[in-house]
Amino acid sequence: MIPDKSISPLYTDLYQLTMGQAYFKNEKHEIPACFDYFFRKIPFKGGYVVLAGLQELLQMLENLQFSSGDLKYLKKQGFQADFLDYLEGFRFRGNIFGMREGEIVFPFEPILRVEGTLLEGQLVETLLLNMLNFQSLIATKASRIRHSAGDRLLSDFGLRRAQSLGAMHASRAAVVGGFDNTSNVLAAERYNIPPSGTMAHSFIETFDSELEAFRRYAESFPDQCVLLVDTYNTLKSGVPNAIKVAHELEARGHKLKAIRLDSGDLAYFAKRARKMFDENGLDYVKIVVSNQLDEHVIKSLLEQQAPIDIFGVGTSMVIGRPDGAIDGVYKLASAGGKARLKISDNVQKTTLPGKKKVLRYLDHYGSFYADCVALVEEEKPDRMIHPFEKEKSLSLKEREFEEVFFTLMENGKAMEETLSVFELRERVYQRLKRLPLEHQRFDFPHIYKVGITERISDLRSQIIQQHQDAL
Amino acid sequence: MIPDKSISPLYTDLYQLTMGQAYFKNEKHEIPACFDYFFRKIPFKGGYVVLAGLQELLQMLENLQFSSGDLKYLKKQGFQADFLDYLEGFRFRGNIFGMREGEIVFPFEPILRVEGTLLEGQLVETLLLNMLNFQSLIATKASRIRHSAGDRLLSDFGLRRAQSLGAMHASRAAVVGGFDNTSNVLAAERYNIPPSGTMAHSFIETFDSELEAFRRYAESFPDQCVLLVDTYNTLKSGVPNAIKVAHELEARGHKLKAIRLDSGDLAYFAKRARKMFDENGLDYVKIVVSNQLDEHVIKSLLEQQAPIDIFGVGTSMVIGRPDGAIDGVYKLASAGGKARLKISDNVQKTTLPGKKKVLRYLDHYGSFYADCVALVEEEKPDRMIHPFEKEKSLSLKEREFEEVFFTLMENGKAMEETLSVFELRERVYQRLKRLPLEHQRFDFPHIYKVGITERISDLRSQIIQQHQDAL
Repeated sequence: MIPDKSISPLYTDLYQLTMGQAYFKNEKHEIPACFDYFFRKIPFKGGYVVLAGLQELLQMLENLQFSSGDLKYLKKQGFQADFLDYLEGFRFRGNIFGMREGEIVFPFEPILRVEGTLLEGQLVETLLLNMLNFQSLIATKASRIRHSAGDRLLSDFGLRRAQSLGAMHASRAAVVGGFDNTSNVLAAERYNIPPSGTMAHSFIETFDSELEAFRRYAESFPDQCVLLVDTYNTLKSGVPNAIKVAHELEARGHKLKAIRLDSGDLAYFAKRARKMFDENGLDYVKIVVSNQLDEHVIKSLLEQQAPIDIFGVGTSMVIGRPDGAIDGVYKLASAGGKARLKISDNVQKTTLPGKKKVLRYLDHYGSFYADCVALVEEEKPDRMIHPFEKEKSLSLKEREFEEVFFTLMENGKAMEETLSVFELRERVYQRLKRLPLEHQRFDFPHIYKVGITERISDLRSQIIQQHQDAL
Repeated sequence: MIPDKSISPLYTDLYQLTMGQAYFKNEKHEIPACFDYFFRKIPFKGGYVVLAGLQELLQMLENLQFSSGDLKYLKKQGFQADFLDYLEGFRFRGNIFGMREGEIVFPFEPILRVEGTLLEGQLVETLLLNMLNFQSLIATKASRIRHSAGDRLLSDFGLRRAQSLGAMHASRAAVVGGFDNTSNVLAAERYNIPPSGTMAHSFIETFDSELEAFRRYAESFPDQCVLLVDTYNTLKSGVPNAIKVAHELEARGHKLKAIRLDSGDLAYFAKRARKMFDENGLDYVKIVVSNQLDEHVIKSLLEQQAPIDIFGVGTSMVIGRPDGAIDGVYKLASAGGKARLKISDNVQKTTLPGKKKVLRYLDHYGSFYADCVALVEEEKPDRMIHPFEKEKSLSLKEREFEEVFFTLMENGKAMEETLSVFELRERVYQRLKRLPLEHQRFDFPHIYKVGITERISDLRSQIIQQHQDAL
């Protein structure tokens, strides 16, 4: 089966294991360490990211364990016996603090803080990045498509163009971000999503006439019948035949559910088809469209007042086009009780040292105003500094804030109640309601403010100075 | 485990099953049918595609079978008992003809021809597209990166940015297309690929000094040691410390394998580092670079004569940036003994009817010259026609051709010997040697000629005419 709740710890980069052995040999593997998960760039030129994939990640961490086959393979690769003995008993028993699945997140702020032994922190890095980067990408794309579609139905049609088995998590994340159903039957079963489907051109072509194909399909699915009308000629053949079948269904006490348009100018054909159905007393028949849709095409179709009820979205959503990835990273913030950082020629790549959390400050209407990254022991900072430009700062005095960091995992056990994908979607909707629309628009969205406290800034300067002195 | 040799038949679009039930109810499910797999657009603005994923697809088809859990789920979704009984005994027993994994393929030609019952053909569509579209995308990207890298080593570093579990097939397809090893340990185990890895910045930061970190790592891996030199300052700290450790290793009878550069200007740092190592008698220490590489960056680095030995490529390769998908489709070509097609307003979307194969014509040096799509019974066409512009044709008289269509599956059993990923890679290399370089260049590659025979063209016109007459 395709894994959801457990996965081999070999699903990682080799260097996690080679570093692990070197830590082990130097008796550093059990020193306390803390890592941050964050990203630097919002995909789709957008203003926010929807965090997704977290619940499944936590389940996988709960079950993470080397099998005898895993260890045999590592032995063949030259790993040493005492380290492999240690790995045999390895379980992830760390703590994870951070934002919940469905939270709206921004660049340069820690989203999760992973605390545990150094080896624990290292061995979960790749899995964490693989799971969260992708599902967050897709949930973000889906939420943009939802933004365009208003309350119309959104169907995930992406399985055939998905990046192989990535399809499963894509279908899940699509719902978290705003979709209603999926054509992917296995994902529908696993995640309790309504499966949805219509018919393909091959069905029509198999019968001697389109009308016969429509009739036969309607007999099989009299109450769930969606007819594909563009196999031969949409307005001269497909729609008139669908109208005939709709009347035949009515005569037998059923109702044609919808037609689907999959080619040509969708705005033009939707309007013409709508008119033809309405003129025949069939105003209840819905119109589904598909074919290269994304948030921009859907926005345009609705601006043209195309009378579309349901959008089937495939490639663009399921692979998160055009970006295809979020650049999420996982960086050491402290080890052995000392704050740590990586220095880079590129100031934006220098990391933030120390154990941190995020406080979300609100405007006077309760909407999200700014996120402040603080050390865990800081209670209510009243000023935040731009992460890279020290001269820019923002007063937080007399502002309310919300905690957005929660205890997600304690000693290797997930602490939050597991929500269904639709409950997660509801959380996304509720959170997005509080994100001002200027951060949600597609073109040059207003940049949400993320800052750090003076204490973090000072700590960073101090460690950089130490390293420069040592050169 | 992550599936490779078998997968649930629910890993499909719902409409395959709803159409299946309608076929079943109309006693059409067992009529003979033939489907073509092809694509319309080459990704990466390139001149060719490397076919990949086929061997795994065939194994999955051999094992395709509904479990009792699958059937129970479908029952809950309202599928009818007699159809579910039929599905319980369903196995794929069809025949597949077409090109072998590793073949170089082009738009608008059938790559595979799937023959079986109508239901068989329909139930495998989504899985086939999901597997072949993605692996072919990645193998194509990898072969372009190989084109730039010459004979330098290529490492797949993509797992953390992959589209979730798509990582497994990406790592496989990367090797088929031209990579040498992977950081993904699970993929390395499964596909017998050498695993490869270095160290992360976190390792360096964990120790009190970079030099100490290097020494400790070198003790653990004295003969496989790759030191990451850019944590604090590449030229003032990283490279000098690596040189010290290299000399210490020499004193103990070992050799430092390489250093890795992961930030800054890679051409500049590689040149400076090379010089420093050479001046210290360490000309055997190799230079690995990583950080946002793709075929264009690698080409540029080598044009600048950067002395780089190994490239670690992540995001761009593992998600096939920028396209992220191949638009492969699967279309009905005949059913019940009759040729079929879909008509579209867009002439390029009208499909080719009938049972077809591809003949690859050669130039006088044995290189690939043009591909001719013919009906299976056509022996040696001496002229081919542009697929959409009838007035354009090409003489094939006195030209040699090769068969590129093979019997891949017979009665549901795979017929070709299963090759290792490195054997497949060798096939790719051998085939690409025969593809003229003008089709392989990155900028505006020469378009490889694909045509159809007059008989196919006539058959298409005839069926279109019949449908127009019927309107």
